[in-house]
Amino acid sequence: MPIREDGQKVVGLAPSRQSSFYGRDIVSVRQFSREDLAYIMGVADEMRSIVKRVGATDLLKGYVLANLFYEPSTRTSSSFIAAMQRLGGAVIPIHGVQYSSVSKGESLPDTIRTLECYADVIVLRHPEVGASEVAARYCSKPVISAGDGIGEHPTQGLLDLYTIYTELGTIDGLHVAMVGDLRNGRTVHSLARLLRLYDTRLSFVAPDLLRLPEEIKEELLAAGRPVAETDRVEDIIANVDVLYVTRVQKERFADLRLYEAVKDYYEITPELMAQAREKMALMHPLPRVGEIHYDVDDDPRAAYFRQMENGMYIRMALLAAVLGKA
Amino acid sequence: MPIREDGQKVVGLAPSRQSSFYGRDIVSVRQFSREDLAYIMGVADEMRSIVKRVGATDLLKGYVLANLFYEPSTRTSSSFIAAMQRLGGAVIPIHGVQYSSVSKGESLPDTIRTLECYADVIVLRHPEVGASEVAARYCSKPVISAGDGIGEHPTQGLLDLYTIYTELGTIDGLHVAMVGDLRNGRTVHSLARLLRLYDTRLSFVAPDLLRLPEEIKEELLAAGRPVAETDRVEDIIANVDVLYVTRVQKERFADLRLYEAVKDYYEITPELMAQAREKMALMHPLPRVGEIHYDVDDDPRAAYFRQMENGMYIRMALLAAVLGKA
Amino acid sequence: MPIREDGQKVVGLAPSRQSSFYGRDIVSVRQFSREDLAYIMGVADEMRSIVKRVGATDLLKGYVLANLFYEPSTRTSSSFIAAMQRLGGAVIPIHGVQYSSVSKGESLPDTIRTLECYADVIVLRHPEVGASEVAARYCSKPVISAGDGIGEHPTQGLLDLYTIYTELGTIDGLHVAMVGDLRNGRTVHSLARLLRLYDTRLSFVAPDLLRLPEEIKEELLAAGRPVAETDRVEDIIANVDVLYVTRVQKERFADLRLYEAVKDYYEITPELMAQAREKMALMHPLPRVGEIHYDVDDDPRAAYFRQMENGMYIRMALLAAVLGKA
Repeated sequence: MPIREDGQKVVGLAPSRQSSFYGRDIVSVRQFSREDLAYIMGVADEMRSIVKRVGATDLLKGYVLANLFYEPSTRTSSSFIAAMQRLGGAVIPIHGVQYSSVSKGESLPDTIRTLECYADVIVLRHPEVGASEVAARYCSKPVISAGDGIGEHPTQGLLDLYTIYTELGTIDGLHVAMVGDLRNGRTVHSLARLLRLYDTRLSFVAPDLLRLPEEIKEELLAAGRPVAETDRVEDIIANVDVLYVTRVQKERFADLRLYEAVKDYYEITPELMAQAREKMALMHPLPRVGEIHYDVDDDPRAAYFRQMENGMYIRMALLAAVLGKA
Repeated sequence: MPIREDGQKVVGLAPSRQSSFYGRDIVSVRQFSREDLAYIMGVADEMRSIVKRVGATDLLKGYVLANLFYEPSTRTSSSFIAAMQRLGGAVIPIHGVQYSSVSKGESLPDTIRTLECYADVIVLRHPEVGASEVAARYCSKPVISAGDGIGEHPTQGLLDLYTIYTELGTIDGLHVAMVGDLRNGRTVHSLARLLRLYDTRLSFVAPDLLRLPEEIKEELLAAGRPVAETDRVEDIIANVDVLYVTRVQKERFADLRLYEAVKDYYEITPELMAQAREKMALMHPLPRVGEIHYDVDDDPRAAYFRQMENGMYIRMALLAAVLGKA
Repeated sequence: MPIREDGQKVVGLAPSRQSSFYGRDIVSVRQFSREDLAYIMGVADEMRSIVKRVGATDLLKGYVLANLFYEPSTRTSSSFIAAMQRLGGAVIPIHGVQYSSVSKGESLPDTIRTLECYADVIVLRHPEVGASEVAARYCSKPVISAGDGIGEHPTQGLLDLYTIYTELGTIDGLHVAMVGDLRNGRTVHSLARLLRLYDTRLSFVAPDLLRLPEEIKEELLAAGRPVAETDRVEDIIANVDVLYVTRVQKERFADLRLYEAVKDYYEITPELMAQAREKMALMHPLPRVGEIHYDVDDDPRAAYFRQMENGMYIRMALLAAVLGKA
């Protein structure tokens, strides 16, 4: 289908309600304004309400999602599949594409232009930074990034932001600390960039080797957000509204003794949580491999499984919004 | 979702009709009473009737099944997918999970607790004995085992029992013989344990190396069921109502000459079937690799493909029952 | 389910309208008459109209397709999945079956007879020539071939024919040229055999090593179709209504220098297209790896992505037709 003259993509039927998301690609957290974020979190609230009351809707009945994963991600792909199905839509699951025509040498644009013949919206996970933007450029239907390499993972950023909002009732005025591999963790970068739009205070907790890139720190400072850095969770845990923990990835360490030292240092235990505020949220993008002790799971402040659930609502909201049905 | 105070899992909307299956996990054949079995076979009869008349229903419209297979099983996974779809529900197919976050080291409980955020019911196939019970313990939604290692395969046991019932009109009073690898075959163990609840007579036909474990024989004897053992099908085929044949697995034999000897010994041929009763059922869980000659397939007593079909009805019944919609 | 006495397969409910496709297998382009082709292209037109107007229909609601792929093909499998879903039906996706019971040694007939217990129609992609016909013989439900080895790929032939029809408004009277690996390309063979039924003139453009098999040329001549051969696209491009380009497969060449010579020779560029008629169609079954320059994509005569889209309509038409719902 042709792209319309005003640059907006044509996505099947006329939308039931217009929004700035209609016909748009979702490829970067940088594309959102506060108004966009308020809108999409509002739609996510509606989606939660629908799922809690009746399980599903027929909003996207007759629509087809191509779920194109060039690298495995059970969590993210399952979340998008469930989101589409609870909206009444259908899914073409395309996983393990290393075996497909892609491996015969076909270019990403050709694959995308083939799939847009079958589907109304494409979700793309790809190991290369920038792949989603390339796909979006060639695709006349909306493309939603499900993560590209160490680059962007915009829907993760949105679900993290939405979780902060639902756990604490607001975003402005909060103190958010991020812990772990802040250098390589794309979820940390995406969330930090979204929080930049809000009146927040940010603390970053990491060993020297894994500190936040200067570039992102400067973006935050330029936006007028106070930024603090430390290498001890104990320094900040008593004063934060959100503690966002990420996995320290063993493979990043040349010196495994250093890894062994930091990985235990960062384990969130019930003892550590005893120092935290009564009202706060402990978050993690999962999977975890030891950063949060299982004994913390029953703590009402442990928000990481609710965070997973929020991922489905945010993805329902995005799918409905880009198809003009939110 | 929280588990309710009475221990029953919360599964979405209020059930249209209560049964003892509502909100339960299906992880072992040992959990069923005769009343349970009568109930679920009755529901399976209804499912068969629906499929024969109109192909499908909307009973589980809006519900989502996570079909989580840690090892491949085309037959079982396809059966569950078709069952859910013919009930109007949707399926998240999660196969080949060796490539997923599981392989990044995530624990089974975390994977399950993620999937319960997206789905209303989880089907789990896992290579380790007891995995389903672990999953069920951590999951607030119903878990249905699709087989764990050499342990349980409860839905196979149920579909085998249901096939005996539909083929012969009763279970009490029957003489059931099981043939093949009785030592390692989990389908044999599951079915024997279910038949223990009925007034049945059981014969076990296997070479010495592959005889039924003492433990199961003792369970049968304790329940008052007559048990006979032999190593010749010819000894019993004329006197059985059911001949349940299983694959002799080559990989169990250290001495391949022994394997070569027994594998042909156990081939069911038209000549052997000529000695069997006019009204009886020849069953096999499939796949077969020579235990039943293809020339037997047209024999009206060859029930193994009807057995496959019954698998879908039993799984439809279980899915509807645990979700309170049977 | 039994095959009826008149040889027609029993496919669930009574058809809403009878056609010669009802209950039939689709395994070869040789099975079609001109009347068959006119009928199925007419149904494809209706499908296109439905998709353009409302996205999808409920025509096959309650029906289940088993999409059984023994070798990967993102394009073809996605096309069948989308086709079934836009008809309101459900899909059991069975890909990567090298890991399944098939690899445990189960025969194709047993696999097919298992799947027909769950599904109403089976789509089969298999690496061996003739596999679809074997499957169809054992299956009481309709089997649709999605390609078997270097043999047939009938739905590709149909979608190619349908694309010619939709691009040029007719098939009779056209001059169709095929370019590339005419010796091994099954899509070329299938399309040539379909064009044999129409008043067409055919030109084949290939280097000596990759010329059309004599057998097919003789079939065309026997049907009274004029056939010309050349090894230069320039010789014919100005005079054709359809230029059907295929991939030259590197692996067929013992002498890679020869490959290097011919592969560039056959690249369709904007300069070459400047010599073509104003009204003509440039087609390619995709994937391409250099046979058509990306700069040609915006040419209105470049029909290859519309060709992909037509694949979905043709497969919708076939699924509806064999299930008696067209």
